[in-house]
Amino acid sequence: QKSSTFSSDDRPLSIPKFLQNFCTIAYHQELASAVPLEFLNREKVIEEQCRKGSMMVKKVNELVDVNNEIEMQQLNDEVFGTEGYPFYLHFAMFLPVLQGQTHEELAAEFLPRAMTLGIIGTYAQTEMGHGTNLRELETTATYDKRTEEFVLHSPTRSSMKWWPGNLGKVSNYAIVAAQLIIDGKRHGPHNFLVQLRSESDHRPLQGITIGDIGSKMAFNGVDNGFLGLDRVRIPRTRMLMKHAKVAPDGTYTPPIHSKLNYGGMVYVRARMSHTNARALSKAITVSIRYSAIRRQGRIDADKPEVQVLDYQTQQYRLFPQLARAYAYRFVGDEVLQLYNQTMKGIDKGEIDLLPDLHALPSGLKAEVSYHAALAIEQCRMACGGHGYSLASGLPKQYALAIAGCTYEGEIMVMLQQAARYLMKSVKRAAHGEKLSNSVEFLGKMGDSRCSIGLYNGQSDKENQAMLASLEHVARRLAQEAFVLWKKRIEGGETKERAWNGVTVEMNRAARIYTRLFIARSFHRRVVSASSAVRSVLADLLSLYLHYECVDMAAHLMHDGHSSGEQIKHLKEKLYEDLAKMNYLKKRLYEDLAKIRPNAVSLDDSFDRQLNSVLGRRNGNVYEALFRWAKASELNYTDKMMKENRAKM
Amino acid sequence: QKSSTFSSDDRPLSIPKFLQNFCTIAYHQELASAVPLEFLNREKVIEEQCRKGSMMVKKVNELVDVNNEIEMQQLNDEVFGTEGYPFYLHFAMFLPVLQGQTHEELAAEFLPRAMTLGIIGTYAQTEMGHGTNLRELETTATYDKRTEEFVLHSPTRSSMKWWPGNLGKVSNYAIVAAQLIIDGKRHGPHNFLVQLRSESDHRPLQGITIGDIGSKMAFNGVDNGFLGLDRVRIPRTRMLMKHAKVAPDGTYTPPIHSKLNYGGMVYVRARMSHTNARALSKAITVSIRYSAIRRQGRIDADKPEVQVLDYQTQQYRLFPQLARAYAYRFVGDEVLQLYNQTMKGIDKGEIDLLPDLHALPSGLKAEVSYHAALAIEQCRMACGGHGYSLASGLPKQYALAIAGCTYEGEIMVMLQQAARYLMKSVKRAAHGEKLSNSVEFLGKMGDSRCSIGLYNGQSDKENQAMLASLEHVARRLAQEAFVLWKKRIEGGETKERAWNGVTVEMNRAARIYTRLFIARSFHRRVVSASSAVRSVLADLLSLYLHYECVDMAAHLMHDGHSSGEQIKHLKEKLYEDLAKMNYLKKRLYEDLAKIRPNAVSLDDSFDRQLNSVLGRRNGNVYEALFRWAKASELNYTDKMMKENRAKM
Repeated sequence: QKSSTFSSDDRPLSIPKFLQNFCTIAYHQELASAVPLEFLNREKVIEEQCRKGSMMVKKVNELVDVNNEIEMQQLNDEVFGTEGYPFYLHFAMFLPVLQGQTHEELAAEFLPRAMTLGIIGTYAQTEMGHGTNLRELETTATYDKRTEEFVLHSPTRSSMKWWPGNLGKVSNYAIVAAQLIIDGKRHGPHNFLVQLRSESDHRPLQGITIGDIGSKMAFNGVDNGFLGLDRVRIPRTRMLMKHAKVAPDGTYTPPIHSKLNYGGMVYVRARMSHTNARALSKAITVSIRYSAIRRQGRIDADKPEVQVLDYQTQQYRLFPQLARAYAYRFVGDEVLQLYNQTMKGIDKGEIDLLPDLHALPSGLKAEVSYHAALAIEQCRMACGGHGYSLASGLPKQYALAIAGCTYEGEIMVMLQQAARYLMKSVKRAAHGEKLSNSVEFLGKMGDSRCSIGLYNGQSDKENQAMLASLEHVARRLAQEAFVLWKKRIEGGETKERAWNGVTVEMNRAARIYTRLFIARSFHRRVVSASSAVRSVLADLLSLYLHYECVDMAAHLMHDGHSSGEQIKHLKEKLYEDLAKMNYLKKRLYEDLAKIRPNAVSLDDSFDRQLNSVLGRRNGNVYEALFRWAKASELNYTDKMMKENRAKM
Repeated sequence: QKSSTFSSDDRPLSIPKFLQNFCTIAYHQELASAVPLEFLNREKVIEEQCRKGSMMVKKVNELVDVNNEIEMQQLNDEVFGTEGYPFYLHFAMFLPVLQGQTHEELAAEFLPRAMTLGIIGTYAQTEMGHGTNLRELETTATYDKRTEEFVLHSPTRSSMKWWPGNLGKVSNYAIVAAQLIIDGKRHGPHNFLVQLRSESDHRPLQGITIGDIGSKMAFNGVDNGFLGLDRVRIPRTRMLMKHAKVAPDGTYTPPIHSKLNYGGMVYVRARMSHTNARALSKAITVSIRYSAIRRQGRIDADKPEVQVLDYQTQQYRLFPQLARAYAYRFVGDEVLQLYNQTMKGIDKGEIDLLPDLHALPSGLKAEVSYHAALAIEQCRMACGGHGYSLASGLPKQYALAIAGCTYEGEIMVMLQQAARYLMKSVKRAAHGEKLSNSVEFLGKMGDSRCSIGLYNGQSDKENQAMLASLEHVARRLAQEAFVLWKKRIEGGETKERAWNGVTVEMNRAARIYTRLFIARSFHRRVVSASSAVRSVLADLLSLYLHYECVDMAAHLMHDGHSSGEQIKHLKEKLYEDLAKMNYLKKRLYEDLAKIRPNAVSLDDSFDRQLNSVLGRRNGNVYEALFRWAKASELNYTDKMMKENRAKM
């Protein structure tokens, strides 16, 4: 039990045995980088990631079960760090789309080569001027009956494909989304397999303008690219025709179901809570470990400087983020389960679960991406100046996490999707219709009087009281937003214009609905947890609920539901919960004491996954910081520095 | 009136005439970089900044009035962008400290050479293991009577100087803070002038370990450095002895006033509101301009895609940040004025203003740094994917601004400084003593009932009502925190331990006190504004106050001061204020229409200061984005790309 802060048999942040036992980079030096990637320029980073990527392709089957996502993710984190890797889009998008949307002949021709990396592909949809609103993509694929070819063309600057990962340098093929045009008639966006570069010398083909879009806030080891198409011709059979079809004579057959590809996007969003929870878990581990090492200031004049984790402000900064890391992980589990159940159900013709699956991943995507990123940033700032150094690993973690507010569905758009579902459900509730699980509370009356603080000492009753109050707020906000919207429509506005006049209220309602679901999911998990971990998780849940309720105090008091005294009570309990967490520090110290003499732990696999000099398990932070700095590229040119390096 | 969004004679974000007229880089190509700095590695960035820095030293006097801080700042922004510049610490810290703390002989020897860059210096105080708490610095300066020398020594790894800007590569001298020890007795930290590198070949001197600390979240054009001292000997006269003195025989004379250097730190903090306001102004300009260019989605089915600025959520994201940019600028003006008045007063023996000057810059530093940074991040996210590209300039602006929460006083420590002042003032108020301006409200009774919403249509009365309510909240929180603290002390805790038990409440009280001051300062500015700008500023003030009050709704309702209905009223007014701001968009379009045909505006000085491809005045965003991307270092190796570049 030496490798995580919590010791338990079903600890959620555990390291798989295989990694502890044999797959550390210490035993596979060819998967390690000689110099921290932070000190290489982009070209060298991409080269280095490509080198390791090729090694991985050869080795991965001996190292992990490639079908186990968590194992794969941990291995990738350990080997590639936070810079991204060259074949990411190939495996994450190109292959699945090829597998899911391609008719047999095309699959037969390309799938085997794609699976063995004989070709490298990506998925090119977003354009410079068009993101969320797919219907407005400008790239066209015009069918030429005479030659039985599609002509792919980007007519304007803003129509260039922009952002696809691994498009700029690595890929030689891409699945390109373009507006299908036959005989002057538009049939909306469809996917086409387009060769971009020569398979022999990797030079771009005729009509292809391709390159890297430049540096970004993070992901600089990834060649996000641009692609211009100047009347590029491809055979008719290169359209992905599993669902929609174009016959040689130009006859168009639409797909049976217009949203057959929708599941993929939902899955990506459903997974994001997990990804965010994982990023936050790493950041909070680094920050709590460092806060127990760093000493500053005195509380008692006659004692040494205190660990900064002793300060109430530091605890207030960090412990609620720890609780959130667990909350997001648990809700991630639930929503993935929901996804799997729903998909199984659809196969059997059952669609009961489908409505929730439209709304929840959207709401969670928005809420969790944003709050996990802010939480990571708090972890970073809690490390003071050193948190600002790339040595801490935290600036990169933040930059990666905050990107989640934008990619795969912009946060405001996501909240509106959840809000639209919420509004439908308010209507159904008013008509007494059956409601899906996540919105069942809309049909309940609830208690308009808050019972927080009435069950002192009986923690689960207190938890239930807080959940009931969150439910009350979520219901009220949804109903109020609905009324505001309706009023505008009755006042003569179109539905969409009325919506735009109340979107801020809509998004707020969607947020609270999502947060209620997260809180309920945390509660469900604690109730069903094994006794070995229940007490620790219950402490975290209590902290989480108190923190959430204090954060929503304005909503709780708005209609007289909660009193100022009750809010005061919540705050007092919150501070008590924070102080209770201090046993973490004690645990941490016991861990450190166990670990310090053990040199092997220096190469600990989880330490590598953390990608942080500050978060070392052995607590030897300052030495590690100096070692890292010495590798800075600016120090290479200094002769004395080299001598000093040797000396020290 | 072509160069800012607002047109007015005293517009706060104006571009000085000299810049508009002759000092654009277009006329001084040697001050421009051929390649965007984002595409150079750190070594090349620093080289390039050094090159421009040397040019600047030669040219600066013909370009601007070097004593005018705003002109200098704008020129620096235009020439150096957001990467920092090589002599920053020399001018900002080394020279002022040398001028302010050095005895005559030492000044005579070094000041003339320092002023002409004959030597380059920095200020080295922070250590790897010691930041805020100066008393615990580990570096020692032990006086050796026999040779009349100080021996400077860093005894441990954590005692290495760490973080000072320009220390790693550029400087050959530094003022080093070290614990003075004479005959085994410690006299606390003092400053010493230490030569680091040879003046002939720039090699580090004997006993000096020096280098760059590696990449950071931003400021990567700056060589923040480390410095280890291994028994380095310097003559006695290299101690900075204007205030404290050490005689040849080791007799120590303490300074007359222990905080003689305090003014410097207060000044730096007082200036930060300005700096933050400026950064936020740039970000909001970029984001609003881009939001008027970017189109996405339809509100009316028969009309083209709308500008994203038409969405209520986008307005809610951006317009309050615009109001904050003004609020922070105005409070920055006031606090600098307070600083200057106080300093003048001190010269005449008047210290009335001093207490406010201890607390306000600390509170503002914490509050404004954090909220300006979050606001910049909202501006960035409001630009969607392109906001994530370094082309937008916004990731760097965020990374620079958020650093302000850490450097020159960590945010939590700053809030506690303000809180301590607040607690003293609560006590004084209870004793009926006279209170300084910023805390006068603590001695007033105030109206316990909120009058928001009672003066519909009379905007200044409404403003007054909101200010009175903010005052009520600030007073209540300060008094409650005081009571909580006292209770713990009465319960037997030491003062400091009791403080640590209530710091979260203390910091909250300090925050609200600061926000009240910002709001009052904005109001004062609007009342005294010239009629030409008053109406625009009044709109912004109204938006600002409504936004602040809604944000503090929980505090307003806590003791029954405001009702839920009043909060609802605040929200409605807030949405009205947002909608009102739409005239900005109209203005923007008029500006664009005027500018588009004018090719010269491409080289507009303010555009360069924005450092953003998205914020171009001429609105030609997509073309500019493509031009920028083509410069990516990854595209240099691609032959086709070069040909394409030529073609397009």
